[in-house]
Amino acid sequence: MPNYRTKIKEKKETHQVYGTNSVIALLNSDQNYTIETIDILEKGAVLSNERIKELIKRYRPQIAYLSPDNFHGKYADKRTQGIVVSFLGDIVKTLPLFKEVVGNYCLLIVDNVTDPQNFGQIIRTAECAGVNGIIIPERNSVGITDAVLQVSQGAFCNIPIYSVTNLNQTLSQLKEDDFWSIAVENGIDAKPWNQIDYKGKIAIVVGSEGRGIKPLVLKACDFHATIPMQSKMESLNVSAATAVVLFERLRQIIS
Amino acid sequence: MPNYRTKIKEKKETHQVYGTNSVIALLNSDQNYTIETIDILEKGAVLSNERIKELIKRYRPQIAYLSPDNFHGKYADKRTQGIVVSFLGDIVKTLPLFKEVVGNYCLLIVDNVTDPQNFGQIIRTAECAGVNGIIIPERNSVGITDAVLQVSQGAFCNIPIYSVTNLNQTLSQLKEDDFWSIAVENGIDAKPWNQIDYKGKIAIVVGSEGRGIKPLVLKACDFHATIPMQSKMESLNVSAATAVVLFERLRQIIS
Repeated sequence: MPNYRTKIKEKKETHQVYGTNSVIALLNSDQNYTIETIDILEKGAVLSNERIKELIKRYRPQIAYLSPDNFHGKYADKRTQGIVVSFLGDIVKTLPLFKEVVGNYCLLIVDNVTDPQNFGQIIRTAECAGVNGIIIPERNSVGITDAVLQVSQGAFCNIPIYSVTNLNQTLSQLKEDDFWSIAVENGIDAKPWNQIDYKGKIAIVVGSEGRGIKPLVLKACDFHATIPMQSKMESLNVSAATAVVLFERLRQIIS
Repeated sequence: MPNYRTKIKEKKETHQVYGTNSVIALLNSDQNYTIETIDILEKGAVLSNERIKELIKRYRPQIAYLSPDNFHGKYADKRTQGIVVSFLGDIVKTLPLFKEVVGNYCLLIVDNVTDPQNFGQIIRTAECAGVNGIIIPERNSVGITDAVLQVSQGAFCNIPIYSVTNLNQTLSQLKEDDFWSIAVENGIDAKPWNQIDYKGKIAIVVGSEGRGIKPLVLKACDFHATIPMQSKMESLNVSAATAVVLFERLRQIIS
């Protein structure tokens, strides 16, 4: 049986982010990214951003100052704020060991979510909520596009994203590492989200709106949490639901 | 002094929504919308949706069945699920009286949020969280584009959206109607979001990420709530922050 910690193929690929938030997170990150190019709008407002000025100092050879015509011609369709960085890096990592981890520790498992807006927001929200890592099925790793990274506003630099070949094996082996697993879904057996205990080592599983969490994954979870709707609508957007659950966890931890 | 209940210009305009969720919400709504056209993909999967089949019965004269070539030619760039409805309606309303309202009642004031993705998600989340109405400054009403309505997934049909000329006057007059107001922002005097009492008649104010809530509006609020970040990131996305606060309110109400 393959171990869930089977070394995945970490692939260094070129990605691109833009805008001050994303660029600051990237240049400030302790990940092993290789900065390839930094395109800056000549005389752009970004050059009076002290944080940016400080961070780009190390990268003089990679910087190109482009005239407004060239810059806007190259990046017309993007809200760049006058700065675009290309970098080489492996975004997804191999899942490490968690047996030794103690205290409050939360992994977020994202099943079937491929919409870049949702996926990017989930990464950003998870980082803000103090989640320790995000796990995605290998098949979905291809979904880590530049659009996803951009929506995350640089959060991908500060939270590890792990890719696994089989979520069910991952769940059962996380259980051996003393994790409880909680699926967020509107099942008949689900408990209201605020009646779940999120303390300790937990894995929270969310799925896409259309396809949801895979049935076998759902079945493997210890608890099912639901967010009762006060409305005629079918359900919250998955990134909103993730925010609600992750900050309920935070509330319980800091209370 | 103009009253905050000054009748606003309700403008009937033509809008368009698509996809089963949005169309079901629209055709099922008790709003006074006039359905102008229903374009359906000939032999599309949407025609086996029982709910849609039932709801479109009333609108035979408005329905056009388009061949795949015509349908996709007309709506190539949209994820229509084979159905597109155009309707005439006034989305924003004049703020009514709230003096007589008792019990838990929540109005969400959205200042400066114009990004369609965020604004649409906020409408959807507010409806799911049982918020009783959304208030926007008149200047922002122009921001209620078809993109916003689409992202809301039909939620705009089930929650009133009020437009007001001056948020400060609205806040002081809501106070006369026994509302407490809570601004969500990262100020030095702000209390953690979970230490605020959201019961009774309250107005929750959220602002855009870039510009935030206008200083005078912020000053007029009774309480300031903050969501402490567990991260290197500056802040949550505004629609995620709104979800966190609105469901903390719901948690307090149902607990």
